[in-house]
Amino acid sequence: MIQNLFEVHEEVERRVERVPTGIIDDLIMGGIPKGSVVLLIGDPKSGKTTFISQFIHTQLTMGYSAIGILVDISRYEFVSNALDFGWDFMPYLEENFFVLDAYTQRLRGTPRFSFDEAVVTDITDTTQLIDAIKDVTLKILSEKNPPMITGVISSLTPIFFETDKKQIYKFLEDLKELAHRNKQVWLLEMNSGIEEPHVEMMVKAIVDGIIEMRLIEENMTLRRYLRVYGMRRTKHVLSWVPYEITESGIRLQV
Amino acid sequence: MIQNLFEVHEEVERRVERVPTGIIDDLIMGGIPKGSVVLLIGDPKSGKTTFISQFIHTQLTMGYSAIGILVDISRYEFVSNALDFGWDFMPYLEENFFVLDAYTQRLRGTPRFSFDEAVVTDITDTTQLIDAIKDVTLKILSEKNPPMITGVISSLTPIFFETDKKQIYKFLEDLKELAHRNKQVWLLEMNSGIEEPHVEMMVKAIVDGIIEMRLIEENMTLRRYLRVYGMRRTKHVLSWVPYEITESGIRLQV
Amino acid sequence: MIQNLFEVHEEVERRVERVPTGIIDDLIMGGIPKGSVVLLIGDPKSGKTTFISQFIHTQLTMGYSAIGILVDISRYEFVSNALDFGWDFMPYLEENFFVLDAYTQRLRGTPRFSFDEAVVTDITDTTQLIDAIKDVTLKILSEKNPPMITGVISSLTPIFFETDKKQIYKFLEDLKELAHRNKQVWLLEMNSGIEEPHVEMMVKAIVDGIIEMRLIEENMTLRRYLRVYGMRRTKHVLSWVPYEITESGIRLQV
Amino acid sequence: MIQNLFEVHEEVERRVERVPTGIIDDLIMGGIPKGSVVLLIGDPKSGKTTFISQFIHTQLTMGYSAIGILVDISRYEFVSNALDFGWDFMPYLEENFFVLDAYTQRLRGTPRFSFDEAVVTDITDTTQLIDAIKDVTLKILSEKNPPMITGVISSLTPIFFETDKKQIYKFLEDLKELAHRNKQVWLLEMNSGIEEPHVEMMVKAIVDGIIEMRLIEENMTLRRYLRVYGMRRTKHVLSWVPYEITESGIRLQV
Amino acid sequence: MIQNLFEVHEEVERRVERVPTGIIDDLIMGGIPKGSVVLLIGDPKSGKTTFISQFIHTQLTMGYSAIGILVDISRYEFVSNALDFGWDFMPYLEENFFVLDAYTQRLRGTPRFSFDEAVVTDITDTTQLIDAIKDVTLKILSEKNPPMITGVISSLTPIFFETDKKQIYKFLEDLKELAHRNKQVWLLEMNSGIEEPHVEMMVKAIVDGIIEMRLIEENMTLRRYLRVYGMRRTKHVLSWVPYEITESGIRLQV
Amino acid sequence: MIQNLFEVHEEVERRVERVPTGIIDDLIMGGIPKGSVVLLIGDPKSGKTTFISQFIHTQLTMGYSAIGILVDISRYEFVSNALDFGWDFMPYLEENFFVLDAYTQRLRGTPRFSFDEAVVTDITDTTQLIDAIKDVTLKILSEKNPPMITGVISSLTPIFFETDKKQIYKFLEDLKELAHRNKQVWLLEMNSGIEEPHVEMMVKAIVDGIIEMRLIEENMTLRRYLRVYGMRRTKHVLSWVPYEITESGIRLQV
Repeated sequence: MIQNLFEVHEEVERRVERVPTGIIDDLIMGGIPKGSVVLLIGDPKSGKTTFISQFIHTQLTMGYSAIGILVDISRYEFVSNALDFGWDFMPYLEENFFVLDAYTQRLRGTPRFSFDEAVVTDITDTTQLIDAIKDVTLKILSEKNPPMITGVISSLTPIFFETDKKQIYKFLEDLKELAHRNKQVWLLEMNSGIEEPHVEMMVKAIVDGIIEMRLIEENMTLRRYLRVYGMRRTKHVLSWVPYEITESGIRLQV
Repeated sequence: MIQNLFEVHEEVERRVERVPTGIIDDLIMGGIPKGSVVLLIGDPKSGKTTFISQFIHTQLTMGYSAIGILVDISRYEFVSNALDFGWDFMPYLEENFFVLDAYTQRLRGTPRFSFDEAVVTDITDTTQLIDAIKDVTLKILSEKNPPMITGVISSLTPIFFETDKKQIYKFLEDLKELAHRNKQVWLLEMNSGIEEPHVEMMVKAIVDGIIEMRLIEENMTLRRYLRVYGMRRTKHVLSWVPYEITESGIRLQV
Repeated sequence: MIQNLFEVHEEVERRVERVPTGIIDDLIMGGIPKGSVVLLIGDPKSGKTTFISQFIHTQLTMGYSAIGILVDISRYEFVSNALDFGWDFMPYLEENFFVLDAYTQRLRGTPRFSFDEAVVTDITDTTQLIDAIKDVTLKILSEKNPPMITGVISSLTPIFFETDKKQIYKFLEDLKELAHRNKQVWLLEMNSGIEEPHVEMMVKAIVDGIIEMRLIEENMTLRRYLRVYGMRRTKHVLSWVPYEITESGIRLQV
Repeated sequence: MIQNLFEVHEEVERRVERVPTGIIDDLIMGGIPKGSVVLLIGDPKSGKTTFISQFIHTQLTMGYSAIGILVDISRYEFVSNALDFGWDFMPYLEENFFVLDAYTQRLRGTPRFSFDEAVVTDITDTTQLIDAIKDVTLKILSEKNPPMITGVISSLTPIFFETDKKQIYKFLEDLKELAHRNKQVWLLEMNSGIEEPHVEMMVKAIVDGIIEMRLIEENMTLRRYLRVYGMRRTKHVLSWVPYEITESGIRLQV
Repeated sequence: MIQNLFEVHEEVERRVERVPTGIIDDLIMGGIPKGSVVLLIGDPKSGKTTFISQFIHTQLTMGYSAIGILVDISRYEFVSNALDFGWDFMPYLEENFFVLDAYTQRLRGTPRFSFDEAVVTDITDTTQLIDAIKDVTLKILSEKNPPMITGVISSLTPIFFETDKKQIYKFLEDLKELAHRNKQVWLLEMNSGIEEPHVEMMVKAIVDGIIEMRLIEENMTLRRYLRVYGMRRTKHVLSWVPYEITESGIRLQV
Repeated sequence: MIQNLFEVHEEVERRVERVPTGIIDDLIMGGIPKGSVVLLIGDPKSGKTTFISQFIHTQLTMGYSAIGILVDISRYEFVSNALDFGWDFMPYLEENFFVLDAYTQRLRGTPRFSFDEAVVTDITDTTQLIDAIKDVTLKILSEKNPPMITGVISSLTPIFFETDKKQIYKFLEDLKELAHRNKQVWLLEMNSGIEEPHVEMMVKAIVDGIIEMRLIEENMTLRRYLRVYGMRRTKHVLSWVPYEITESGIRLQV
């Protein structure tokens, strides 16, 4: 199984399998195609972290494994916030939800990981980061035989601070390569408006899918809208869909 | 009690407690969640300092302690301005309103603090500033047993002058870490339009809540509007709400 | 009296006294609060110099003293222009209108001041400039016992040419400190659109009040409008008010 | 035959022969003129790769040879994606569809080409790239006697990362020279909004034709539109034409 | 007479004398106030050179002397163009129209002036230029006793190429000083849109008057409009006034 | 005859002679004034090259001589393209149409000129270019006695790549000087949007005339429009005029 990680599946992929998100599946033929890197880009406070928690919870309850690279939120807070919506990650931690708490590590200087092997001393060193992701993937594959591994990065923002355009491109291509080869689904959170427009466009050009979350002002009031801008090998709705953040998470208003 | 300051509350936070603001509580389920850093961003002359004074006055009359980091207003003037609205801070000074008059210190070269320990020789040295904030917190905790500590920074503008994007991010993350761990509420004042747009977006992305104050021109006349753009773990109104600055402070016109 | 200049009025200011402008008093509760730095920002040719002359003339006829820092207009021209409106400053010169003709000094290389002590060799050296202003203030206080000292800077533009953002901030804070402590009113003229937008925003954020003068195009014709954007401790009209420049100065059309 | 590659056809070209695209031929008099470099520029996720696959499939089924320079997609994925639309490239690989998988080469460090000669060690070295293209052309000409050779570059984006304006211009001129002399049709994919506007304008100025693909928002919904902005020696429709991506590829809605 | 050039007229100017322009006098109380620097700013091809020729012709026929600093047009062409409108400058050359043909000098390397003394080796050396202007003024005053000297610079554009903001400011202040002291009227031609906006704003802030010439598109057609944006000590029309360029020059359509 | 080239025609030009364009003569009093440099600026694919070919064909059929500086199109292609419209340049080559094929020279490294003397080793060396233009002019004058010499540069874009603002200005002034002195008409092609706006404005300010060609979007369709923005000593239509590119060239739709 493990040696497949770096082996090239040269046989052509004829069938598209999908991973349900628990949120937008009605918009995208039931789920995200396996082997996809999807950008989740949106305004501050639009609910991106809630989307990610809801997505992971959906994976875990299906018996899938999940990797969480937490860059600007601590594991403690990520887990606490999820509880507001009734999603309890605690039973899954150390089991099949593998969290790399890069946030706490960055702030306190001491690594506190769910798995000992993965140490990322500098989050802006994208080579190190991609290696850590590969290591976790290998570790999961060597210990378990999961039907599916999904991953999230929350968020890309601090990673991109001292990283130039070309390095960002390389990192995303490497992650895409990994995801495609291992049929993983990765969800990458990104704040809109912090990076320069051409960097945002570049990231959008590389990824396999784009989900946008916005707070749009209508008659002096903000309304929440979500859109699937694009999704590889998926026929999807192209409209802005209003949504609410309810006690049980994001609910589309269709 | 004190050792808790740096101890990690790893148990999950299940309940949201709130601190009333005295101004916008009807919009945000009664108050700001304990353990929040909230950005108060707005146009010049929109009444940000009045908002902050009114907020602190509300805390003090509830018996809470407050920390005031004054960066571009002197303690003398801050106290005088508040009197216009009938808020007398003098009985609270040296008692449970702890002011770090960084303004006077900067301008006159001599430190004049409410407490001797805190000396900030360079306001743009954000490491020093975060240390001073920690020291004051420790001092309050060691001498009193306050039900709640809130803090304000008025304003971030001079702090950001010679500070690069990455340092600003680190400072805000450190403050957020402190606030979250000690269940403090911090209100950070910032002038809109002075920092570059992507820096404003970054600050908005990090904080737990955003309150906007604007002077919007309608038919050749300015009108004051306030909006809660986002607030962690809080269902809130998303509209611009008009307000007036009356003799007793900010009053929403709802 | 003199030692008060640098002594801190730590007692709280409970009452707001106002200085009439002779122009916009109906809009601002009768005048500008004593102890204020007010920005007069506007389009070229909107009548900013006329506003300043009219303001000074109002002060002088009330028996107040005035300091005029002329940076981009000579004393000769300033006095001549005022005569067009019937305001004769000549009897007041050397008496209680103290002019620092930095314009002539800059252009001709020889200092020609109303008072010998004040020499500003480089107008962009804001430390020197603030010292000169303090010296003049001291001189007036030592020789006279004026009920009120007001000041104008006409204009900030050449001062800001080689001055970085942080220095400008420091200069304005120092001037504000001086004005607040000595209950002076300072009117600072600034051309809109020459400085970068964030510098304009920063100046607006520091000052105690903002008066805007604009030439707005309506149906292919320019019309003059004035607005009080903000004024510390003052309830004021927030509308654009049309005005004309008549033979007796600026007259609001309300 | 081979020596013609670099020989100048000084006799004047009097007739325009066209290559059908299988997509937009009704808009452009039946096809792209032989000897053209055409820019395919568009929004992310607008279907540029699908356009290119459909174009190549059309060439191959007509018995033409095709060169594919894959820069940001692997050969494996390119072939897989095409299968979704029923286009099976596998029988043509190694026969008359010559793929330079610069993507895999870049990411894995090992060259994996359909032909051994072409090695591009650095994709941003445009001189090397143009040489590789010439080599492939020569190879095809020496081994076969194809009625027509077309080429695609998918996409220009990573090539332009470290390449300055002047080098880009030179590369495009060289490619145009090659295409014109050998009557090849080249389709160049480019993401809009990543390069600076003046670079986009420059590329548009050099190429012989421009096809634009956009996602335009109408009433909160994205719609796909395609336009032929210009095409050398071709009378063409100048309107935005709506299109859909169906199970059998791009279909104009005319 | 001559010594007056550098002597300060400290007595106050009580009366405004005006110089007719022959073009816009109905808009500006009969003419431009003596002792003014007026900016003539406009779109390319709006007729700025025609305005300047018409202005000079008006001066010369009144018996006034005129100085022409030609920077981007040769004397030969300036004189030829004027003939189209029936204005023959040839009788006045060497008499009371003093032309510094800096254009020919720049292009051919040899100075060809109406007066030998004035040599400007580098047009961007604004110190040298202001000295040349002073020398010509002195020469005219020493040889003649003209009722009035007016001057034009056509145009500022090449002068500003390698000149920084502060130097430009100094040059304009020096010229204004000279014009004010000697009651000269100077008309400065400038192309809009070549300098950065804040430089345009700065020039507008310094000069005593601003005349704008624009080609405004209305219903797919350009129309010519002229406006007096501001004029020192002059009550003037604030509207855009349409004009035509007829066989006898610029004619307002009022 | 030859010595006149550098001799100054100091006698004033009283009559305007015109050169017909064959395209827009109805808009400009019959033609472009002799001794003019005219900018032809427009969108990519708007038909600028067709305009230039049509202009040259008009000159040649009138018996005039023409100089073609081809910078981004080869002589071969220029001639081929023209044939589409029925304009056969071949009989004129080596006779009175003198082509400097700087394009082929640049791309192949070997100079291929119609005349041997003119070698331009670096197209961005504007001094060398202006010398080559002078040499060709001299050669034509020494061998023939043409009633008129016109010239085109197609296009300015690659020349401006490494040329700074001041050098561009100098080159255009030199060319204008040459054109004016020898009564030549030069048509300069330029792509809009590649140079920075202030460079475009500067070029527009220097030239004697401006012809604009645009593709304007109306109701989701592009339409072709042409406008004479300005023309020295010419009363011209100021409207956008629609045009079509027909089998016999550009035809205005008036």
